[in-house]
Amino acid sequence: MLQFIDSGSITSVKGIKAAGINCGIKKERKDLALIYSDVPANVAGTFTLNKVVAAPVIVSKNVINQKNKVKAILVNSGNANACTGTTGFNNALESQYYCAKKLSVNPSEVIVSSTGVIGQQLPMDKLKYGIEMICNQLSLEGGDDAAEAIMTTDIKKKSFALKVKLSKGNVTIGGICKGSGMIMPNMATMLSFLTTDADIDSILLQQLLSESVNQSFNKISVDGETSTNDMVILLANGVSKIKIENQSKDLITFQSALTKICQEMAKAVAADGEGATKLITISINNARTKEDADAIAKSMANSPLFKTAMNGNDANWGRILSAAGNSGAEFNPDKVTIKFDDLPILLPNYQLEFDEEEARQVLSKDSVIISIDLNEGKESSTWWTCDFSQEYVKINANYRT
Amino acid sequence: MLQFIDSGSITSVKGIKAAGINCGIKKERKDLALIYSDVPANVAGTFTLNKVVAAPVIVSKNVINQKNKVKAILVNSGNANACTGTTGFNNALESQYYCAKKLSVNPSEVIVSSTGVIGQQLPMDKLKYGIEMICNQLSLEGGDDAAEAIMTTDIKKKSFALKVKLSKGNVTIGGICKGSGMIMPNMATMLSFLTTDADIDSILLQQLLSESVNQSFNKISVDGETSTNDMVILLANGVSKIKIENQSKDLITFQSALTKICQEMAKAVAADGEGATKLITISINNARTKEDADAIAKSMANSPLFKTAMNGNDANWGRILSAAGNSGAEFNPDKVTIKFDDLPILLPNYQLEFDEEEARQVLSKDSVIISIDLNEGKESSTWWTCDFSQEYVKINANYRT
Repeated sequence: MLQFIDSGSITSVKGIKAAGINCGIKKERKDLALIYSDVPANVAGTFTLNKVVAAPVIVSKNVINQKNKVKAILVNSGNANACTGTTGFNNALESQYYCAKKLSVNPSEVIVSSTGVIGQQLPMDKLKYGIEMICNQLSLEGGDDAAEAIMTTDIKKKSFALKVKLSKGNVTIGGICKGSGMIMPNMATMLSFLTTDADIDSILLQQLLSESVNQSFNKISVDGETSTNDMVILLANGVSKIKIENQSKDLITFQSALTKICQEMAKAVAADGEGATKLITISINNARTKEDADAIAKSMANSPLFKTAMNGNDANWGRILSAAGNSGAEFNPDKVTIKFDDLPILLPNYQLEFDEEEARQVLSKDSVIISIDLNEGKESSTWWTCDFSQEYVKINANYRT
Repeated sequence: MLQFIDSGSITSVKGIKAAGINCGIKKERKDLALIYSDVPANVAGTFTLNKVVAAPVIVSKNVINQKNKVKAILVNSGNANACTGTTGFNNALESQYYCAKKLSVNPSEVIVSSTGVIGQQLPMDKLKYGIEMICNQLSLEGGDDAAEAIMTTDIKKKSFALKVKLSKGNVTIGGICKGSGMIMPNMATMLSFLTTDADIDSILLQQLLSESVNQSFNKISVDGETSTNDMVILLANGVSKIKIENQSKDLITFQSALTKICQEMAKAVAADGEGATKLITISINNARTKEDADAIAKSMANSPLFKTAMNGNDANWGRILSAAGNSGAEFNPDKVTIKFDDLPILLPNYQLEFDEEEARQVLSKDSVIISIDLNEGKESSTWWTCDFSQEYVKINANYRT
């Protein structure tokens, strides 16, 4: 029913074009992306909960709140346009207007987004020159270029597409995202842009997106930091002519497909966290409440001591228990079981039977599942994070974000 | 009225003896400390809020809760006796009994405390041998040896004493502590042992300690981690014959003296955080509420991005604002002023006028004050932390705590 498309991207979706170029904000690497829908698309979005919000977040929230249809998303990297005051707000508006003019659409049909250094004004000459260029370079193959243009300290491009079989035919969901540092809910914790050719009304679309974001982007943490610029945007242009009705079976299928692609994207962000050497899946099981399960997973995902141990491939179950104990969740440590993949590490009443070398080998892989059974109830939660390396510190001691 | 004593320690206090030795838990470094009061002392304590608590924490909480007078505090480093189940609990009790027997006191007069690796049983033969030895080595000069024996990854010994002039004469407060990693409220976030020769009843003593801990040890963070073993213990043996009465002026003087020495100890812990190159004082001013001021200071003290920037001497005010914005506190970022020591960095409406090189020089010192004026109200808070270095990761990827 769900099938990932090899080398798929946002442009795998019918009626979506994209492009990614260098306009001079960065020295050589791509720094400007444009996503374009041939027909006006319904739109949904979720945004950072940081009190300090960047100018483009304010501008784009307005677009979403007015329930406008949207034709384009303009994204620059290299400059966050955050903490830039009135000038920065006017620059965000001007880039929205300028892009709309070049595309012959209304300004209210353009979402704007930025990522990069905080506290510097956008170089508007370069940006406007870039907007002129990029509007002429939109193509059906441009998804990957756009994915590349939104990267900052990311090492890997993050581009996905998923084919979804519904009762009346197939629809496609595509997505690109960037992450790396300043990654932690709520909310978006990075930039993520999704497209679909399904026909979904905007209220339903927002419900679908919020639910999927809660199960994906809101369950990752690289460093416990929520940025000033985070957003997840989903465009639904209806070009497939397949309508998804409220309370239908197709809605459930689409929801799970959207969650699936959002989770793949979120995992890619966690795996490519600054300095990360591995993806860590934290699986909390048999908690008393959903909130307890989430609290423990989050506490582990933000624990420097747990994450440095993972970096050192050290089967340091004591730090795992200690991080769980700091979460505020109700549980009895005597009853806890901890496994690394399928290898039991800690059994109830602190029984230890594992072989250190075997544990080290499991942890040495580039993806490992740390699962905890609390033996308290029936609730569970899964989060994703990465290890914490000297490289993270090196990157952030020397790079001004 | 208050005067720090050069090279002072817990044994600067009348009627207090101490010792520190190696008993073989660690290879060569000291690993066992004993603090002894000639006369039974009133006692107060605050303990970790982690759900996972080490055996000695349970045993010592019992002593405090029963309002026993106390004669001795036995502390080992190198092994936390945490997550050790029934065997670990019995070992904690046995060391308490054994030490009491050797000192010819009641077991309920002995506080026990441990720090070090989680999940391993105490080597009881070595420990009992050590207890026999150390009971014969108590001396009036032993404070520094005790301070050394409680260290784990600490680089500097932390030993203080403060002379306090009261209406009827002088009393002394002495203290030793250890910190380094797993440092964050609440509560104690490390081991800290204080003595005083003032005569204070135990209910008042607990109030005094709790208040001073809130203003000191509960306002530091090295890495946002609260350990399983943290405790702060204060013994008041009354040997000075100077009684501190409730609601007296002397009480106020003593409270501020206790807070003063606790703050010096807390700052020493923050400055000696794992891998730290500097002490960072975070001063939040003119917040709407006390809670807002604390929330912002705490968010900064736990922000990897702020702390890596401090490690790189980078005047990255954007990360400071972003960390403040993530705190949940109410404020308008447009109104914020940020200073490094006396150097203005950010003025309201994002006015920047500082010289990058000058800012770098201020940050390069081994102690810097980052002050933030929110311009929202009249409340303030001061926290202490350290920078976040590659060395922290190196230590914790390779050291099993």
